[in-house]
Amino acid sequence: MIGVKVVIVGGVAGGMSAATRLRRLDEQAQIVVLEKGPYVSFANCGLPYYISGEIGNRDDLIVESPAELQARFNLDVRPEHTVTKIDPVTQTVSGTTSGGRSFTESYDKLILAPGAKPLVPDIHGLADAANAFVLRSIPDLDRIMLTLHQVQPKQALIIGAGFIGLEVAENLRRRGLAVTIVEQTPHVLPPLDEEMAAFVQQELQAHNVRVITGQSVTTLQDDGHTAQLSDGTTLSTDLTILSVGVRPNTDVAGAAGIKLGLRGGIVVDDHYQTSQPNIYAVGDAIVVTQQITGQPALIPLASPANRQGRQVADVIAGLPQRNRGSIGTAIVRVFDLAAASTGLSERAARQAGLDVAVIHVLGKNHAAYYPEATPINLKLIFNPHTGEIYGAQGVGVDGVDKRIDVLATAIKGHLTVADLPELELTYAPPFGSAKDPVNMLGYAALNITEGLSTHIQWYQLPDALKNGAILLDVRDPDEIAEGHFPHSVNIPLNDLRDRLNELDPKQTYIVSCRSGQRAYIAERILRQHGFQVKNLDGAYQLYQAVRPNDLVYPK
Amino acid sequence: MIGVKVVIVGGVAGGMSAATRLRRLDEQAQIVVLEKGPYVSFANCGLPYYISGEIGNRDDLIVESPAELQARFNLDVRPEHTVTKIDPVTQTVSGTTSGGRSFTESYDKLILAPGAKPLVPDIHGLADAANAFVLRSIPDLDRIMLTLHQVQPKQALIIGAGFIGLEVAENLRRRGLAVTIVEQTPHVLPPLDEEMAAFVQQELQAHNVRVITGQSVTTLQDDGHTAQLSDGTTLSTDLTILSVGVRPNTDVAGAAGIKLGLRGGIVVDDHYQTSQPNIYAVGDAIVVTQQITGQPALIPLASPANRQGRQVADVIAGLPQRNRGSIGTAIVRVFDLAAASTGLSERAARQAGLDVAVIHVLGKNHAAYYPEATPINLKLIFNPHTGEIYGAQGVGVDGVDKRIDVLATAIKGHLTVADLPELELTYAPPFGSAKDPVNMLGYAALNITEGLSTHIQWYQLPDALKNGAILLDVRDPDEIAEGHFPHSVNIPLNDLRDRLNELDPKQTYIVSCRSGQRAYIAERILRQHGFQVKNLDGAYQLYQAVRPNDLVYPK
Repeated sequence: MIGVKVVIVGGVAGGMSAATRLRRLDEQAQIVVLEKGPYVSFANCGLPYYISGEIGNRDDLIVESPAELQARFNLDVRPEHTVTKIDPVTQTVSGTTSGGRSFTESYDKLILAPGAKPLVPDIHGLADAANAFVLRSIPDLDRIMLTLHQVQPKQALIIGAGFIGLEVAENLRRRGLAVTIVEQTPHVLPPLDEEMAAFVQQELQAHNVRVITGQSVTTLQDDGHTAQLSDGTTLSTDLTILSVGVRPNTDVAGAAGIKLGLRGGIVVDDHYQTSQPNIYAVGDAIVVTQQITGQPALIPLASPANRQGRQVADVIAGLPQRNRGSIGTAIVRVFDLAAASTGLSERAARQAGLDVAVIHVLGKNHAAYYPEATPINLKLIFNPHTGEIYGAQGVGVDGVDKRIDVLATAIKGHLTVADLPELELTYAPPFGSAKDPVNMLGYAALNITEGLSTHIQWYQLPDALKNGAILLDVRDPDEIAEGHFPHSVNIPLNDLRDRLNELDPKQTYIVSCRSGQRAYIAERILRQHGFQVKNLDGAYQLYQAVRPNDLVYPK
Repeated sequence: MIGVKVVIVGGVAGGMSAATRLRRLDEQAQIVVLEKGPYVSFANCGLPYYISGEIGNRDDLIVESPAELQARFNLDVRPEHTVTKIDPVTQTVSGTTSGGRSFTESYDKLILAPGAKPLVPDIHGLADAANAFVLRSIPDLDRIMLTLHQVQPKQALIIGAGFIGLEVAENLRRRGLAVTIVEQTPHVLPPLDEEMAAFVQQELQAHNVRVITGQSVTTLQDDGHTAQLSDGTTLSTDLTILSVGVRPNTDVAGAAGIKLGLRGGIVVDDHYQTSQPNIYAVGDAIVVTQQITGQPALIPLASPANRQGRQVADVIAGLPQRNRGSIGTAIVRVFDLAAASTGLSERAARQAGLDVAVIHVLGKNHAAYYPEATPINLKLIFNPHTGEIYGAQGVGVDGVDKRIDVLATAIKGHLTVADLPELELTYAPPFGSAKDPVNMLGYAALNITEGLSTHIQWYQLPDALKNGAILLDVRDPDEIAEGHFPHSVNIPLNDLRDRLNELDPKQTYIVSCRSGQRAYIAERILRQHGFQVKNLDGAYQLYQAVRPNDLVYPK
């Protein structure tokens, strides 16, 4: 008995998840996987770590071989097979092997998992720059490693400060290269908001990575050894990595009449079916529904790709299954820090026209009284009226992944800010706190929604001060001495009740401390005594990271 | 203007959270905190770590002093004040200071946060054992430290292998003492299920802690230096720690006519109100609703206590707030392992008469190809028909806290097993995997609920083998050589399709591998070829940890 013939184009995350799940569901199916590259099922996300030797064995990046996949899953896996044409009428795909041989393969069902391909920025002279590379595959990595060994470059230029750009920057730095990052947008890690990214930029600079934001590379000259920026300055580079993002790899799909949508992504229904019968698509190449906005989105991440691959196998095998959309969760290690986000950024939420409030909380990875407690900066983006959670971001040394995972779970579960204090999270001194930072986010958000606290954001501070508000710093004098706002009134919190007569009930006060905890207490004292008061969200430690450069102080 | 007078009995987690929140809500309130011990707001959960010096500074255990609380929160905090009587009619509390002075204090509102007190086991001769201690407060700790310094004990006996017992055992071991733990129930960490606790017991033994389960200490003699167990054996001990659990500290409340419930816990309504007007109660002393069963429960943990304290302040200040119940989440570090649980154990779920299925998944803390990946054993307890999640447990070196926190959040959010694969968790090689172990729990549970896999649990194995089922181990020969079931058939997974003719379609096969992943693939192959097959949940690595000692093999 011969079963259904399923051809899968692309053998990494989505494609290989589909192939193996389908086999577990259907021993009879004929499953053919066509992969353009020399490797299937490789550890895409591990590539940057091989540059520094942190992952020391290249074989570790290759999770499974075609022979192993044949033996275990009875899969017909064909690397070096590039599909160049899909014919939905005859139900065939055709293409060329890297050896130059043509092939044609018929299918009953076709799963497209072609992934994304690196965006190539419009840089004059890039084609002649033999020292410029992307990093998306093992052959890409091999080319970079060859250059590192043969040329022994001293200086590297990273174009694009997204997740992969920062990983490559760190790993090149660990090899001892001088590294410069050029990012076109105003700050590193564009998926994060500016003030959270500021902590990451500080960390990069603390490790002697030069960071240039708001600039693009316009020209590469001297065989790629000199880069010119949009402001005219030039940089020397021995090795250049392009990491400005990806776009769906869908030219072949589009040419076959398969409907494409947002930025060329393949349009699929809830069952991963494309506009053409018997053709499905998953992974980085498809348009998904952003669950929070309900809008179409491209979310090129490994986790959704793997899930989608498994789910499309269910669909083809006749199990009830549908794509419920994605929220997008990501993390990156940057030297001693981790930076992570889930859901919408403040910027994305505002762009989507949502009713947005944000709070910042400075927590600790575990009990403050237990050794090696380290700070975590958390940000929550939510609806101040319904409490709906739109997104969260975190930056810290340890435990950021945990908090963002909890918040990602809360978003998926449609929990509101009122549910966050209710979360009972693991607490013993080495692991957490009786009031976890996630609980604290909930408390702080409720203080906003219940009207107990009125926040002002760091970017609103310049205008507020211009309009005459007075900044009241309630830290202790020894803290003030270590760093302070250019102009502020200082009354330590513990003295505040006794010194209320020093304040003017006709003024508006903006209270701040180091992290925000004491400022909130001060706000409550002042408000109950009839003062007009706002709380500087994130307080001094956030301000000193982002330092709004247009801060104007009252004369 | 003088505000409401609120007296709070108990100044640690729940009581102090209530006091500080109330102050933030009400500057006018008169807030008096009566604490029987010498310290308020101390780090209860940190005490064991001071024994080994891991927390080196005793002051770090005392989070806030009465003077600081006065200055910052205008609280009237009175340590060494033991309340011995509550009079709901005159609205007064009275008692004695540790200096012997009597006091009486009137209240408008009374918040009882008396906590729990250690259960003292019924041991003959305990009263004469000057070397036997409990560990619940800083004075308890001081007594233990004094003995450690003065007597320089060589051998310690821990009675009770719950969370605190294990923490004390580890910290005494780190000081170099020979440590024996005696636990009355059949396994250590009674809140966990037996097979998960088995990993913890292995870890204790690997660090030369002697573990005796299923025995109680009946007698202490020779001034406490000889312990006799229920089976008649004797143990020498220089230092004995009693950690057999706690019970609500509610004698005074009960004497005042306040209604007590489950095991003497104070009965409160959703607003923390007791049966007496103007008297509220929070923390370890109250009966809460176990959210999953809806049944009354005692959950003496810091996280709910802090939340309840804050919420009762809201109630008294007139903010809408109610107690939504608890699920119970806990974690303990045991040498290099962490062991954690949330919600119901399998045992508790079965005792509650719930429809229960369980699965075990062996995952990794982060990407397997990234250095220092370590295993995590996870267990999920759920309803096989509705997918409702009842509880979860985890044991591993790293990342257990994160997975249990995600699952605790899922339970609070009423997510089902079908939602777990949908969770988009942070993934970069140092932090996680594209398919996180939590996602894998969801996939494995769905395979059960969808009928794709039929599990057999480790404790069902003896009967199944007795009834003639054949154990089929699909590991490779080199793995088998390292350790194996006493009797099993071995066909490596990759050979299975070619060797189906060696199997008897009339038999029932129980498939196993190391972790369960290959066994599931084997199960799917066999099932589709018409064999009767069950999957040994948790596979060999779970079996070798728990080794059912009544395992009977077919002749």
